[in-house]
Amino acid sequence: MRERLVKGFHDGLVCGEGLIAQGRGEAFDYLLGERTTRPAGKAAKAAAAAIILAKKPVISVNGNLAALCPAEVAGLAEEAGMLVEVNLFYRTEKRARAIGKALEKAGAKNVLGVKDAEKNIPGLGSERGRTSKQGIHSADLVLVSMEDGDRTEALKRMGKKVIAIDLNPLARTSKKADITVVDNVTRAFPRIAGEVRKMKGKPALARRVLAGHDNKGLLRESLRLIKKRLETLSK
Amino acid sequence: MRERLVKGFHDGLVCGEGLIAQGRGEAFDYLLGERTTRPAGKAAKAAAAAIILAKKPVISVNGNLAALCPAEVAGLAEEAGMLVEVNLFYRTEKRARAIGKALEKAGAKNVLGVKDAEKNIPGLGSERGRTSKQGIHSADLVLVSMEDGDRTEALKRMGKKVIAIDLNPLARTSKKADITVVDNVTRAFPRIAGEVRKMKGKPALARRVLAGHDNKGLLRESLRLIKKRLETLSK
Repeated sequence: MRERLVKGFHDGLVCGEGLIAQGRGEAFDYLLGERTTRPAGKAAKAAAAAIILAKKPVISVNGNLAALCPAEVAGLAEEAGMLVEVNLFYRTEKRARAIGKALEKAGAKNVLGVKDAEKNIPGLGSERGRTSKQGIHSADLVLVSMEDGDRTEALKRMGKKVIAIDLNPLARTSKKADITVVDNVTRAFPRIAGEVRKMKGKPALARRVLAGHDNKGLLRESLRLIKKRLETLSK
Repeated sequence: MRERLVKGFHDGLVCGEGLIAQGRGEAFDYLLGERTTRPAGKAAKAAAAAIILAKKPVISVNGNLAALCPAEVAGLAEEAGMLVEVNLFYRTEKRARAIGKALEKAGAKNVLGVKDAEKNIPGLGSERGRTSKQGIHSADLVLVSMEDGDRTEALKRMGKKVIAIDLNPLARTSKKADITVVDNVTRAFPRIAGEVRKMKGKPALARRVLAGHDNKGLLRESLRLIKKRLETLSK
């Protein structure tokens, strides 16, 4: 994964801050045991349910995600009928184009947010809030990964349902999202796609799964797992 | 700190892997409360004692350290009469030169390891083990920070005393070092320099401090602090 990120950096997909963010994620992944935990699996199932029930679900893609698992992003979009939009915290047009190309190369269709990122999310700076009218701006559900806390809060204020994939269960994004999958994106995307495959065409089941989802409870469980692992590792 | 690292990256001091490593450190710093903890303060004092009692103590400098706090490195070298050597895991001559220059600009004198990194540490690859005959290769004590586990073990096999500054108390380097300061380098260097200032000319005191040092105990204490903070943060 480190090599893919560093390659992504040299290819112009990932910025320096993105590499540092990857390191922070790595530390939490290590503390979680570098596996999909029980609460992460449950959250992935709830995420699939929410995606199935959404009218217009969009995957928000940043440089790290495009460098790490573009095919898995395209795979979920295909499986679930989701739109894919490039959405960057440190936006440059060059980087947006490079990410769009990487996604298309990996099989994503009609990638938004490259040339059409013209609408602003209220409450964010002009560059940090740029989104596509056809995509995130009019979506009812946005799937973000490794997302900044301010941006997650701004999406919530717009009334959107937010699914976050984030390895740090204490991050603001993790706390503010409706559904938080505390897992590595490389594992979470195929997992959510698999759950969508099983749940497609079963809206009643999806509604039951969603009604039973307890995000705070799952975040607490992730923290307990980290504490347990610290105890094991320290022996 | 992030900005200094990213600047160091653009100036050719820091490599992509160094940025990722910084992120890992950040996560642990966050879990430790971004402060010098009690065990870190005790370890810094023991580090000062070991440095005072050493015949030839050397500070090993990598790109991250040179980008984050070159003046603090030069300050400790001056205060404690330590040598400074550029020593890189991902070595290129260009990067070694850039780091040497940054250290000299910050006040470090006679920086080793740029043109004279000709001796190999046994058991490491030729590039990863290159050291100066006048410096690390003949040192009795090496102060490393954010160091790779293999390299720390190789230094130990050569019979050297190793002081490690590392924010991850579970890292192999942290476990293998004689004295582990679980703290951010930007706080640890001035702290150790201050302890050296107070302890200089008092070898009997330094011996007592060193005799009372319990590295495993302090590492366990750092882990306990992380667990406590996870509990506080999860409320």
